[in-house]
Amino acid sequence: MQVDRELLELCERVSAASYKAIKDLVGTPEAYTTLYIGADGTPTKLIDDVSESAIIRELEKDSCSLRIISEECGERIVGCNPEIALIMDPLDGTHNAAMGIPFYSISIAIANPSLSRVSFGYVKDFATGDVYCAQLGKGAYLNGHRIYTSARSDLMDFCVSVYGYHPHVTETTSLCQAVRRIRILGCVSLELCYVACGKLDAFVDVRGSLRLTDVAAGTLILEEAGGIVSDEKGSKLLLQDNVLNRVYMVATNGRSHQQILDITRR
Amino acid sequence: MQVDRELLELCERVSAASYKAIKDLVGTPEAYTTLYIGADGTPTKLIDDVSESAIIRELEKDSCSLRIISEECGERIVGCNPEIALIMDPLDGTHNAAMGIPFYSISIAIANPSLSRVSFGYVKDFATGDVYCAQLGKGAYLNGHRIYTSARSDLMDFCVSVYGYHPHVTETTSLCQAVRRIRILGCVSLELCYVACGKLDAFVDVRGSLRLTDVAAGTLILEEAGGIVSDEKGSKLLLQDNVLNRVYMVATNGRSHQQILDITRR
Repeated sequence: MQVDRELLELCERVSAASYKAIKDLVGTPEAYTTLYIGADGTPTKLIDDVSESAIIRELEKDSCSLRIISEECGERIVGCNPEIALIMDPLDGTHNAAMGIPFYSISIAIANPSLSRVSFGYVKDFATGDVYCAQLGKGAYLNGHRIYTSARSDLMDFCVSVYGYHPHVTETTSLCQAVRRIRILGCVSLELCYVACGKLDAFVDVRGSLRLTDVAAGTLILEEAGGIVSDEKGSKLLLQDNVLNRVYMVATNGRSHQQILDITRR
Repeated sequence: MQVDRELLELCERVSAASYKAIKDLVGTPEAYTTLYIGADGTPTKLIDDVSESAIIRELEKDSCSLRIISEECGERIVGCNPEIALIMDPLDGTHNAAMGIPFYSISIAIANPSLSRVSFGYVKDFATGDVYCAQLGKGAYLNGHRIYTSARSDLMDFCVSVYGYHPHVTETTSLCQAVRRIRILGCVSLELCYVACGKLDAFVDVRGSLRLTDVAAGTLILEEAGGIVSDEKGSKLLLQDNVLNRVYMVATNGRSHQQILDITRR
């Protein structure tokens, strides 16, 4: 695996701190208690807060200096003169984790401090232990093995993850009728990784409510695996300097992108 | 756990034989090779056939006499004068298993030979090892612990599994707009068990293509956990003597059944 060992180890350490903190809360009613409204404008649940707090404690132990952008706390600077930025969702798939549905993850993207260039992406499936990672220009990996998107190009054979079913059903009707299978698994960062390794053929979210913190890592992993990620107009999603940005996303195996854009644009 | 130990052991043995046969095929392209059209009228994939063949070999070792009704082979009698019938889906969630999406199971219902009364239901989640079972009048269990459906009654809080998205999108639009969250996990027997233990609040399939082999065990498990299972008119689903029967299904936590029937009937 041709990725930067130090960055991978940083992600593994952060991920282990999060998992240790949340594991006894998974599948318990208290996990889903609302504590406050997070920096991203959505309710922060106990299990989200526990994960993020454990990660920040872990990062503050270090002597290294970091800019952290995270779903609940917004922005935080550890040390001074940060050399890198961590864009995190400390727990993606919060509802699944709280209910005990085994499909939730941590998502970490590493960028330069101005966020103009994401160089590393890491998503860990907490239910199975699978690790997806990618480094810019070096490919994408699942548990150390190189991964690629599916070879399918006929939409009628596609298995697609589609968000917008609730409440934007009408916008997704044409797409749902054009493909073979739909999955809605409830953990976006992991669903992008599923497209990266060919378990799904595309991921579409027309709600316009996706957060950059959720998709930054998955986007790099999918692009490095041969996929294409864009907004509804086909433009590249730029990781802008605002944790509150919401995006519309079309992410595909790279063999059907324009076709899916054409269908969802109708 | 107040269930019949002998029936549980029979199911465990059958399930272990299936898992041993399929585990090396999970996530491989050859798993999804079509071998023939099964008794239920759908293509039998290699991994389905391997599972069913291993189960039948296991059951034929016994001196007991059984009527087997299974998705691929249709009907088979082991021994003579069967005392019980096994209604099986040897592998539910075939596409997930073949793709390596960790959500697939075995489903076994035990009934009298005329199928007029299902007395035992067993579903094993092959990805996590979780075992759901129920005996008529004795309750439903997850890994030996009694389970109950969710206490939610307001549809706006519901997390619902909805099939009909493709290709019957229009029939499900109202329901999807009335609930909080949608999941489409791709393994019906397990999704019924998720409603039984409160991980989901309802399961609706308006495709009219569900097979009795898929739902017989999950139906008993959900009913014993406090849920309600019916067809689109609210009538109980009768396990009729025909493996080819296709059903429409509304399965709920028991607190919202009429409301969901009213919405999906529009």
